[in-house]
Amino acid sequence: MARGGMEARAQTQVKTPVVGKHVYGELYGVDEKLLQDEGRLRQIVIEAAHIANMHLVEVNSWRFKGGDKEGVSVIALVLESHIAIHTWPTYKFATVDVYTCGEHSDPMSAFRYIVSQLSPKRFTVNYSDRSYK
Amino acid sequence: MARGGMEARAQTQVKTPVVGKHVYGELYGVDEKLLQDEGRLRQIVIEAAHIANMHLVEVNSWRFKGGDKEGVSVIALVLESHIAIHTWPTYKFATVDVYTCGEHSDPMSAFRYIVSQLSPKRFTVNYSDRSYK
Repeated sequence: MARGGMEARAQTQVKTPVVGKHVYGELYGVDEKLLQDEGRLRQIVIEAAHIANMHLVEVNSWRFKGGDKEGVSVIALVLESHIAIHTWPTYKFATVDVYTCGEHSDPMSAFRYIVSQLSPKRFTVNYSDRSYK
Repeated sequence: MARGGMEARAQTQVKTPVVGKHVYGELYGVDEKLLQDEGRLRQIVIEAAHIANMHLVEVNSWRFKGGDKEGVSVIALVLESHIAIHTWPTYKFATVDVYTCGEHSDPMSAFRYIVSQLSPKRFTVNYSDRSYK
């Protein structure tokens, strides 16, 4: 019983006022046409936000042309965090950030969804706890 | 001589087509008035982009009101990466991301500048290499 009480207290102590979860990674060998398709990339970000149970506020995107700086950036503000995709079609390369707030958001499922849609030949994934500690 | 040649080759091999550097961290004990000041936070992000030698494309910001979701988000698109500040004035808490591309950008100096302007009582800092590898 005493031990159970200690565990309950420990759980209370680790509860944080701001839960932040950040999943990010690099994607290699992605189809270059897809990495130039601003409309499709926006759509993927919007779908990923819904899958991760994120409150989507606004999506912005830009397409850059010319030389090796060519590519697309999509950045979505979600309450209060963000999803970002930056692409380099010349190198079939993209980077993805899914940063979510709140206990019920699930950034890994959003990251997995983006990977499933971009179908890279290989990718890396990292996780960072961005909570108030 | 042979060894020098090997070192030269090794340097050539590690050269990457896309250099990405991501510095991020959490700031604690920041003045809550400052964390509500959307205009000042935008200005800090713009100044940080210049200090880091980043090509600033667009700055967007939002202020949220009501309950513990209150706060400001500033997200700047830079070519091709981003700076983001999310704030929680209720908890005197903010998170900062400075993600830059290119060999000549210096995200750590931008991160340090943001910290110097927000004057947290304590902060964490992390680095992730987002380059093509």
